[in-house]
Amino acid sequence: MKTLRGLILSLVGVSILFSCRPEEEKGADNVQLTNPLPSWNEGKTKASIIEFIEKSTDKNSPTFVPEEDRIACFDNDGTLWSEKPFYFQLFYIIDRVKATADQHPEWKNTQPYKAILENDLAQLKKTDVHQLLELVQNTLAGSTPAEYKEMVKAWMATAQHPTKHKRFDQLVYQPMLELLDYLRANGYKTYIVSGGGVDFMRATLTNVYGIPSEQIIGSSLKTKFNSENGNYSITRLPKIGFIDDKDGKPLNINTIIGKKPTFCAGNSDGDLPMMQWTSSQGDKAFMLYVHHTDVKREWAYDRNSSVGRLNKGLDQALKDGWTIADMKDDWKVIYPFELKK
Amino acid sequence: MKTLRGLILSLVGVSILFSCRPEEEKGADNVQLTNPLPSWNEGKTKASIIEFIEKSTDKNSPTFVPEEDRIACFDNDGTLWSEKPFYFQLFYIIDRVKATADQHPEWKNTQPYKAILENDLAQLKKTDVHQLLELVQNTLAGSTPAEYKEMVKAWMATAQHPTKHKRFDQLVYQPMLELLDYLRANGYKTYIVSGGGVDFMRATLTNVYGIPSEQIIGSSLKTKFNSENGNYSITRLPKIGFIDDKDGKPLNINTIIGKKPTFCAGNSDGDLPMMQWTSSQGDKAFMLYVHHTDVKREWAYDRNSSVGRLNKGLDQALKDGWTIADMKDDWKVIYPFELKK
Repeated sequence: MKTLRGLILSLVGVSILFSCRPEEEKGADNVQLTNPLPSWNEGKTKASIIEFIEKSTDKNSPTFVPEEDRIACFDNDGTLWSEKPFYFQLFYIIDRVKATADQHPEWKNTQPYKAILENDLAQLKKTDVHQLLELVQNTLAGSTPAEYKEMVKAWMATAQHPTKHKRFDQLVYQPMLELLDYLRANGYKTYIVSGGGVDFMRATLTNVYGIPSEQIIGSSLKTKFNSENGNYSITRLPKIGFIDDKDGKPLNINTIIGKKPTFCAGNSDGDLPMMQWTSSQGDKAFMLYVHHTDVKREWAYDRNSSVGRLNKGLDQALKDGWTIADMKDDWKVIYPFELKK
Repeated sequence: MKTLRGLILSLVGVSILFSCRPEEEKGADNVQLTNPLPSWNEGKTKASIIEFIEKSTDKNSPTFVPEEDRIACFDNDGTLWSEKPFYFQLFYIIDRVKATADQHPEWKNTQPYKAILENDLAQLKKTDVHQLLELVQNTLAGSTPAEYKEMVKAWMATAQHPTKHKRFDQLVYQPMLELLDYLRANGYKTYIVSGGGVDFMRATLTNVYGIPSEQIIGSSLKTKFNSENGNYSITRLPKIGFIDDKDGKPLNINTIIGKKPTFCAGNSDGDLPMMQWTSSQGDKAFMLYVHHTDVKREWAYDRNSSVGRLNKGLDQALKDGWTIADMKDDWKVIYPFELKK
């Protein structure tokens, strides 16, 4: 499951972990070893991440965290990959709505279907997580998880972002991939905790971040077990099971993982309760907000954005001294494909 | 987190995994290596388990399973530890009901509270998973997961089984501990998937089976996130969230793990849908029923038991050729403390 990149970075990380030579002995050949986040610019943000990880893995530190408690939770949309002009899952749904519109004449006069069929981007941008999930439930019910997975995978292999002209799974953030690898190399178990559909993420993102499906937590539909005539299967029902957003994030982490994360990252107010819950552990916890400030290389938005609004979260991060990654200033590159330039 | 026993068995298992010498070369010194389940008697059951594991980890086998798909799910009550005279969680609840009865005069005339207060075992044995969870929700709401965990841990450290006179966490099955270790040594990720309360299991069984809390799946209460005055916490509510029994087991595995297990073990009809769903993968899947046949060393029960009834499951196991572990015939010892005799 591990990518080659992941493997190499892990090995680098393992070297860091087992590097017991005192600071004085480290020479120029150790630059790579002491620079586990190569796509992050030197500065306060990068330094604070590295300082936290080093202290949390140092048995002699007052903020040492035993390995079984090193749980790192990452939001997905806007934190690990882009989310503009709107959540990538919505592009999949749009294609599904268009493909099945002739079976639903009522959609012509009902939002958000109307906006989809008319390519009304302004209206579509107003779609929130709840409406998104309603779309999911009305366009995708009836399929088994395996059928759905194949459909989404086939779509992801060819679909292109409308302005970036890349596959959506190419629009992941290189600095965050490095951060995930760095955490894992230091004994952290990395999770996605996202408002997006868990089946959608499992179909599209397994192997992309080095996170296995059982560490992907998201919103889910209700399901049904079938056992007619000795054929055993699960069907996805047109009913929302759990919305993994806002308060739902800490609640789902508590139910599914049963541990409080000591590291978490997000980019919007939807992540705030997860960040707050994590922060209740004081210096043993690290909260990272990704701030979209790069209008040239990605997008710039925060307090007034319809997708990925960061308003209350930004206030609290500034007030409580949480770490804020400024995309423009802190990241050397945004996407992995830029590395090859 | 790993026990010494677990570590040793893992190393043995790793040796098995990397033992590439042809069969002919293996001499008497390999007895230990080729006997990874020492508390299982030689015979059909043990042989079928070992044959399955070996084939599932052999790249040249038609039933090879890649490591990321080696998901093994175990029921808990009656599969990993005893469940008589009734589910061990109920003993905790009984103590809680008695301790708080003066605040609930109505319990004197309401079942199953009445039975608890009157020590009416016959009536208590009729308590099913749903009633158990109702008891949980009515006796334990309002506490945070951390508070609850401490209460349960303190209870477990002193409470004794009424007839075995052992702590409840001593009444786990030695042969199943060995099976869990053997699976993990062969790259399987082991999970508990039980009708019992997930918080109860996490408090009492983490470290007992070598399974971390994030691999314990169970029934859960609804919860609430609190953020008043900058104090962030989660409260357990007096309302059932999800019952992880019968159909709920495959549904929860699908939602939480997102993969179909290829190995599963249970002991009752409550495990049947999980077994059926697993079995839908043909020869790539292994289904193990623990059959309680040992009236002397443990208990003997199946089709007519109020706790842990195995009726339809036994029929299907016999019809479809699933593996049945006969406790009396297949297990050299039942509990770990018997090893020291």
